[in-house]
Amino acid sequence: MININNLNNLVSNKSHGNRGMILEDLINETNEYYLKKDIALIYKKPTPIGISKVKYENGKKVLEKGYFKEKSTLDYNGLYEGFYLDFEAKESLSNTAFPLSNIKTHQTNHIRNVIKHHGISFLIVKINKVFYYLDGHDYLDFIDHNDRKSIPIEYFSEKGYKLELSYNPSLDYLKIVDKIYGIKDGLK
Amino acid sequence: MININNLNNLVSNKSHGNRGMILEDLINETNEYYLKKDIALIYKKPTPIGISKVKYENGKKVLEKGYFKEKSTLDYNGLYEGFYLDFEAKESLSNTAFPLSNIKTHQTNHIRNVIKHHGISFLIVKINKVFYYLDGHDYLDFIDHNDRKSIPIEYFSEKGYKLELSYNPSLDYLKIVDKIYGIKDGLK
Repeated sequence: MININNLNNLVSNKSHGNRGMILEDLINETNEYYLKKDIALIYKKPTPIGISKVKYENGKKVLEKGYFKEKSTLDYNGLYEGFYLDFEAKESLSNTAFPLSNIKTHQTNHIRNVIKHHGISFLIVKINKVFYYLDGHDYLDFIDHNDRKSIPIEYFSEKGYKLELSYNPSLDYLKIVDKIYGIKDGLK
Repeated sequence: MININNLNNLVSNKSHGNRGMILEDLINETNEYYLKKDIALIYKKPTPIGISKVKYENGKKVLEKGYFKEKSTLDYNGLYEGFYLDFEAKESLSNTAFPLSNIKTHQTNHIRNVIKHHGISFLIVKINKVFYYLDGHDYLDFIDHNDRKSIPIEYFSEKGYKLELSYNPSLDYLKIVDKIYGIKDGLK
């Protein structure tokens, strides 16, 4: 559990090396909260690892050699009020834009597929110390109508939704999902 | 791709060592078919691995020591016609029953949670050379009303649905999901 008093400090003072990490921690903590409060079931997908060699240590299987494989999907998926959710969380190294190299082509295809099959897909992006929710529809709309290599921050403030850092949960992104998809209004 | 001519042979003649493997291959192949034919997006969750030590070989990150962690959820999840699916595939070592030790307590809780949050959960179980689909509701119903340590095969033939081994896809379990949840009839 991250202490709220240190939260803003942590988020702004963190070292370059563990950039992506803090956002991941916030999302994981939020998902644990949703799970504990019986609000939603959302999990981070484990990094797929190719296993080359295993051995046994005190009767326990231990991995002695493995290689990192590329994920073909997004980082998180799960279930919320009967809706399938699938999303990615990324921290932008630029303060003015989100480089599209952060999302691989097959991941963009996956977002397209999720929407096509009536699921909900989105990005949570941190740019210049601000967290944004950008819905999959708006992400694809940008991709499909621009040749640019990055999404400018203005697009996030115009089409996206700001996520305020808070306490329990840290980043309440389901509030935005509710708003966009009218879930809590019983529009399903 | 598994050749259909060898399929039944493979399934019955396989060695003891790779028991679960063949069923996993059939499910993976079926999921690839669903993906390719744009029917559903269903993925196997990677085995979660704790990373203890990494090194770099020719500039590539390689895992030098890792340990296997226990999955808190089921093996497969995904999206089908707007429905969230979450399931497990298991091969029974007994020819007359399915030992409940195959499903861990937290996995049973997960099945309960998925259903509670309006998702679809089920088991695909192979007993005595026959593949069965057993819906999560019927699985929980057994658990909640029995003190037995295994589900007898009769329960599968009574409450479950036989899955015939076929060609493209190998094990068309979505046909059963359609039937139970009336998805293709537009009942959603």
